[in-house]
Amino acid sequence: MESWKETPNGLIKVFKFRNFLKAIDFVNDVAKIAEAENHHPDILIHSYNRVKIMSITHDEGSITYKDHRLTTLIDSLGPYS
Amino acid sequence: MESWKETPNGLIKVFKFRNFLKAIDFVNDVAKIAEAENHHPDILIHSYNRVKIMSITHDEGSITYKDHRLTTLIDSLGPYS
Repeated sequence: MESWKETPNGLIKVFKFRNFLKAIDFVNDVAKIAEAENHHPDILIHSYNRVKIMSITHDEGSITYKDHRLTTLIDSLGPYS
Repeated sequence: MESWKETPNGLIKVFKFRNFLKAIDFVNDVAKIAEAENHHPDILIHSYNRVKIMSITHDEGSITYKDHRLTTLIDSLGPYS
């Protein structure tokens, strides 16, 4: 599985889907996790079928265990074929 | 109602909501419109409760009637209070 990039803006990864609606399904599942964790990443739906997730801990201004936990849970989603 | 900004990247507007889940509700409604119109904007969910919509006609590389139509339909959504 492709890994998350550690950047000054947080952990970042782009997910590609079969079509737009599959991308939206993924976004809804990410949203459920974000609410359950009370940790809300930025989510960019772009280029029809791609979703970019950006997770940082704003209170700390850096990547923390909350981001690693969130991204691990996001990686467990799917498949969306 | 606040208007859309015409930029080189298309028509852009940021919508603010009471919380994250209201923002997600909005995104799902925008997604339904995008599918019905077969015209898919980029959608950025950011800062917990904000959604930025960016609509351009990629085939033309510019803003066209498709973008004006889409943004008008998006403005008709809600409220999400």
